[in-house]
Amino acid sequence: MRPKPLSGFPEFLPNGRIVEQAVLDSLRQTFELHGFASVETRAVETMDALTRKGDITKEVYVVRRLHADPAGAASGDDLGLHFDLTVPFARYVQENAGHLAFPFRRYQIQKVWRGERPQEGRYREFCQADIDIVGENTLAAHHDIEVAVVMLEALERLHTEFGLPPVVMHVNNRKLAEGFYRGLGVEDHMAVLQRVDKLDKIGPDAVRALLVDELGMSGEAADKCLALATIQSADTSFVERVRALGVEHPLLEEGLVSLAEVVTAAAAAVPGRLVADLKIARGLDYYTGTVYETEMAGFESLGSICSGGRYDALATDGKRTWPGVGISVGVTRILAPLIARGQLVASRSVPTCVLVAVDAEETRGAALGVAAQLRARGIPTEVAPKADKFGKQIRYADRRGIPYVWFSDGSVKDIRSGEQVAADPTIWTPPAADLLPGVGRQA
Amino acid sequence: MRPKPLSGFPEFLPNGRIVEQAVLDSLRQTFELHGFASVETRAVETMDALTRKGDITKEVYVVRRLHADPAGAASGDDLGLHFDLTVPFARYVQENAGHLAFPFRRYQIQKVWRGERPQEGRYREFCQADIDIVGENTLAAHHDIEVAVVMLEALERLHTEFGLPPVVMHVNNRKLAEGFYRGLGVEDHMAVLQRVDKLDKIGPDAVRALLVDELGMSGEAADKCLALATIQSADTSFVERVRALGVEHPLLEEGLVSLAEVVTAAAAAVPGRLVADLKIARGLDYYTGTVYETEMAGFESLGSICSGGRYDALATDGKRTWPGVGISVGVTRILAPLIARGQLVASRSVPTCVLVAVDAEETRGAALGVAAQLRARGIPTEVAPKADKFGKQIRYADRRGIPYVWFSDGSVKDIRSGEQVAADPTIWTPPAADLLPGVGRQA
Repeated sequence: MRPKPLSGFPEFLPNGRIVEQAVLDSLRQTFELHGFASVETRAVETMDALTRKGDITKEVYVVRRLHADPAGAASGDDLGLHFDLTVPFARYVQENAGHLAFPFRRYQIQKVWRGERPQEGRYREFCQADIDIVGENTLAAHHDIEVAVVMLEALERLHTEFGLPPVVMHVNNRKLAEGFYRGLGVEDHMAVLQRVDKLDKIGPDAVRALLVDELGMSGEAADKCLALATIQSADTSFVERVRALGVEHPLLEEGLVSLAEVVTAAAAAVPGRLVADLKIARGLDYYTGTVYETEMAGFESLGSICSGGRYDALATDGKRTWPGVGISVGVTRILAPLIARGQLVASRSVPTCVLVAVDAEETRGAALGVAAQLRARGIPTEVAPKADKFGKQIRYADRRGIPYVWFSDGSVKDIRSGEQVAADPTIWTPPAADLLPGVGRQA
Repeated sequence: MRPKPLSGFPEFLPNGRIVEQAVLDSLRQTFELHGFASVETRAVETMDALTRKGDITKEVYVVRRLHADPAGAASGDDLGLHFDLTVPFARYVQENAGHLAFPFRRYQIQKVWRGERPQEGRYREFCQADIDIVGENTLAAHHDIEVAVVMLEALERLHTEFGLPPVVMHVNNRKLAEGFYRGLGVEDHMAVLQRVDKLDKIGPDAVRALLVDELGMSGEAADKCLALATIQSADTSFVERVRALGVEHPLLEEGLVSLAEVVTAAAAAVPGRLVADLKIARGLDYYTGTVYETEMAGFESLGSICSGGRYDALATDGKRTWPGVGISVGVTRILAPLIARGQLVASRSVPTCVLVAVDAEETRGAALGVAAQLRARGIPTEVAPKADKFGKQIRYADRRGIPYVWFSDGSVKDIRSGEQVAADPTIWTPPAADLLPGVGRQA
């Protein structure tokens, strides 16, 4: 009986896994080029740490030893699988603060788990890649620019190297919206923000009704909130459009300046990939300044594939506070649909570049010797598992996408072109493009 | 309040994590050079799949949605975290057999979890690196040699490149022992094997007593079993020593030939790293031929750091059977003590090779430009987070181990030697040894 896949726990076949590895390697390389250090945290946190954010508890997977007391209800001491990489990182920073040098720049690429009901397109296990910069007590504003630029560089590289769709990052600043609402005389700015955040889902008329009916705003004020939310620009022209709405507040001014700086710097570093978008709110998350969301062209229905923002306090121990700014990309969310549809594939399903043929079991030793010589120069090589005829050996390679077969007469054949040449295993080198599996977009 | 580490869930500081990454990268590279494809499976399996091996159930972590029905006792449909990578791989092979090309060679580097009681030196989460070769219905004997040689090459590389202690792999063959016991007239060879397996723990006299008292063996037969278990050789001389015991059985002969082949091939490929050791049994695991255990010099008290063997049936669906042979190395088990004692360290705690200094915030743009030029040539570079004096910038680099600081006057300083030279960011390249963090042994 064949085991069935578990809904929400995607696994890749070897070809898809090579795609995933290439993408993860590329992300890692970009992050390290920018001096981000890797952190890997344990899979579990205490339920106390995981449930500090109120309503997220419903999505947590609780973890218990099989023979732990089964009667006890879940308590704060129990363990749960982490549902993001921010909660574990905040705990890691606080636990190890004495051993870290601040500002601390880290990337973290790991699985996260959410105890969702099984449902189309919902993952219960998926891979995220996060970058964050965390300061001790203070963190300069230019890091808000930096994390956006680093992540956009990383995503741009996935686009140019592997043909992933291009992305556009939408950026806003919570201070801008808060200042605007305060300038309109609103006290509870979060209440406005939460309603405006529903714009894409329920439309402007319904949001206007909520603002007027539930919050008692004037029609004119509600219209201004809606007008603010429609402003979007790839340059700093958004500033004038906001000012034209005639609302004034010091916090609004602060947000405008800060957002303009991000837009200007990003336009220089990664042209065309970042826009100011004044409707971005990031819902209930506790961001306090810049916020980021990202759409992938042609995959808008996935929602934001890469989000984040600035926290005034990623962590605090009463005495010290660690402000942070970070962005997280949903690697599985991007890759799983592309791989499942066969749109993103590896040129072969194995690392192997050369298969050394074996004519007869007595000559396996000679084949092993050739393989060792090739590997010594970094060429991934397998020896045929079974002595067999020419045609069978070619078929073995072909089924796996291995491009070259090495024969005992001292020749190597490119099985795609059929070209066969005499070669010396201490010298012969494949074309650079064949050394490792290639990864690319299929139309 | 500072969060406390969870016992049994080791986490590394950034320096230790760089060590771990270097080791994992090296293992991956060796495995891929030999044509092993990466597989990554989900963290969870059904409890049914996890508990098929009887007595392992006590170590399983059960995973449940927080709001799942709390009354229900653990059932077969429940999920648990995998405690090794063999059970998930067997399930993956069976689930995807139609899409895999056999013999299928895979490596898998992932965390595993064991619901142990907290206890010194016991990990509840740790990283394993496995290689396996799996056939459909048949699998040639030479793969038993291959997985040993590949793993020994991988471990040898950790020794020569990073200074990890050298290892010796101890190999036996279950057929050899079974044939020997049958040749002595014993029916229940597993009963003998399980008792002889206690040799290191309880000593020869106690084992002899068990064989005689519990299994009713003659003193002479028991002595022969003990004599067999003491035989060890780095060459094929063990064959004659076994024959000198005067026991005969076709299965014994088969085991001797097979083990001699492994020893001969390994002595050629990785001299001095593999011995035939006829006491190796691998306890209750369901191996059916070659078995492997590995000791790390100076860390014998860790037990075997790398074990495995051959299964006649890694998986079966009634019609087809998938025999396999594989070895698993306990990465955390090796690294955690070395890193904790400061014996294995990275030359710096960040990937960064160059820090570009910032004299004044107005010149940050110029510093970013220099950094971009260096990164474009693959040099990991950070820009100073704060405009500051010369000395402070040096200190920032020094605290992280960053070897070079780039100044706005177009000079670069090696802060270890103090040497400072004029340099062009489009040309200057650090010595190869400085480009990435080095990893090595500290006396």
